[in-house]
Amino acid sequence: MAILFNNVTIIGVGLIGGSLARVLKAKGLAGSITGIGRSRETLELALRLGVIDHLGQGTKQSIEHADLIVLASPVGSFETIVKDILPHLKKGAILTDVGSVKGKLVKQIEDLLPRGAHYVPGHPIAGKEKHGVAEATETLFKGTKCILTPTRSTDPQALERVRSLWLEAGARVVLMDAAAHDHIFAAISHLPHAAAYAMVNTVAEFKAGPDSYITFSGGGFRDFTRIAASSPEMWRDICLLNSENIIEMIEQYQFALTRIKKAIKHRDGEKLEKLFRAASDCRKGLE
Amino acid sequence: MAILFNNVTIIGVGLIGGSLARVLKAKGLAGSITGIGRSRETLELALRLGVIDHLGQGTKQSIEHADLIVLASPVGSFETIVKDILPHLKKGAILTDVGSVKGKLVKQIEDLLPRGAHYVPGHPIAGKEKHGVAEATETLFKGTKCILTPTRSTDPQALERVRSLWLEAGARVVLMDAAAHDHIFAAISHLPHAAAYAMVNTVAEFKAGPDSYITFSGGGFRDFTRIAASSPEMWRDICLLNSENIIEMIEQYQFALTRIKKAIKHRDGEKLEKLFRAASDCRKGLE
Repeated sequence: MAILFNNVTIIGVGLIGGSLARVLKAKGLAGSITGIGRSRETLELALRLGVIDHLGQGTKQSIEHADLIVLASPVGSFETIVKDILPHLKKGAILTDVGSVKGKLVKQIEDLLPRGAHYVPGHPIAGKEKHGVAEATETLFKGTKCILTPTRSTDPQALERVRSLWLEAGARVVLMDAAAHDHIFAAISHLPHAAAYAMVNTVAEFKAGPDSYITFSGGGFRDFTRIAASSPEMWRDICLLNSENIIEMIEQYQFALTRIKKAIKHRDGEKLEKLFRAASDCRKGLE
Repeated sequence: MAILFNNVTIIGVGLIGGSLARVLKAKGLAGSITGIGRSRETLELALRLGVIDHLGQGTKQSIEHADLIVLASPVGSFETIVKDILPHLKKGAILTDVGSVKGKLVKQIEDLLPRGAHYVPGHPIAGKEKHGVAEATETLFKGTKCILTPTRSTDPQALERVRSLWLEAGARVVLMDAAAHDHIFAAISHLPHAAAYAMVNTVAEFKAGPDSYITFSGGGFRDFTRIAASSPEMWRDICLLNSENIIEMIEQYQFALTRIKKAIKHRDGEKLEKLFRAASDCRKGLE
């Protein structure tokens, strides 16, 4: 395929940012890729691995020639970064992101953006257990969904170009309202993370002699709480940015737990089995 | 090693019962292994795979010569099975089980047991995602814990023989009070199962157009809810048999969720990060 973007700058070259860079390289979609971010060590590794072509030297030089800027750092950093880069955005530059919260962030960024620059909000549903640029691969997005949440002010051509990029990455692109996105991901992603953190905290409080109960845990508990090993700062920011939806979901979840608790209290085996079977059938449909 | 038990009868030849049979065979610990259970198909498969030597022909013939009887069927079936087999237990026979609830079950079984027969309650902490005798292997218990919960009436020699069996299987044997066992497993196993069922039920109620929110789920949700695919009947029985502890744990868990919810509501980022970091550090220590 022909070059899609002449100069690309990726802010935050981790698993997601790095994998997108690898797609751009593998498919020859970018003239040149510059990486910037907090950790010089990560950027040097990205350069050594051939994920990026250049290590950004300051914000101005890294941004002023960029045709595409990808925000792939933690969502809590977006506002500061956008404020930092916006004086340097060239006319026609496209800014996109891979953040897992959209509503408030999209509004924040759109309000800050100068005329002549375009913003296309995105959220690729990809990831794996291991993080970091060393794990980045051009196949990460193959067969996954990438959600884009354009608003009334999103430039249609910019949207189309970002869409093409994700299609090239092998993702299925789903267009969605930012508010709908945040409600859905509060349920399927943000709630499970909060629930896994709460589960570990619950169990960690109990001890049998000198040993935490957790030392007796088997594979089920490990699977269940794997996501509780995720970055506390990142999930703090997501919870604050999508607070209303996450609070709603936690309350719905507490309600579902109370239903099970009541069935146990009333020794209602039929009800319990029904609740468990509905969940079990639904979950079996997933894999 | 020398033969530990002349005739062994395994009731319920699935992953656990079948793997224990494989250990007995691989190490030459049993003279002969008979399998009985609800499903003739499973037993025929176990026979074909060489997991058992004989397919039991009726309760009397399967039990009257047995030196060791292993209850490896779902815990909800234990009471009925014990009532069924007890008239046929020979003097000195040892009954053991692999059930994941102990307190009430142990009492039920001890109350039913005739003089001269011995009961050693057990719970190997092993399992894998796949079930059934075809997955049974003599290495399943290697490096795992097996909990035995003897009572004041447990025969010390019977306990020692069952202990030897699990040591031969490669498990670390932990002796524990049945009540302590049930409290620990309410926290690390029964609660996560109830929580996973509740999670799937919560999310399943939401739809985006014709699609359930679940169709947007990624790896995190899948890991988190994997255990919700478990047998609804089995978990119904466990919840009813360990009801008080499970209710306590659900309430503790709801409390931990409320703490997170409140920190989000009050936009207390510091508190949120602290709660998440405690869980994250604890979880990272697990693997």
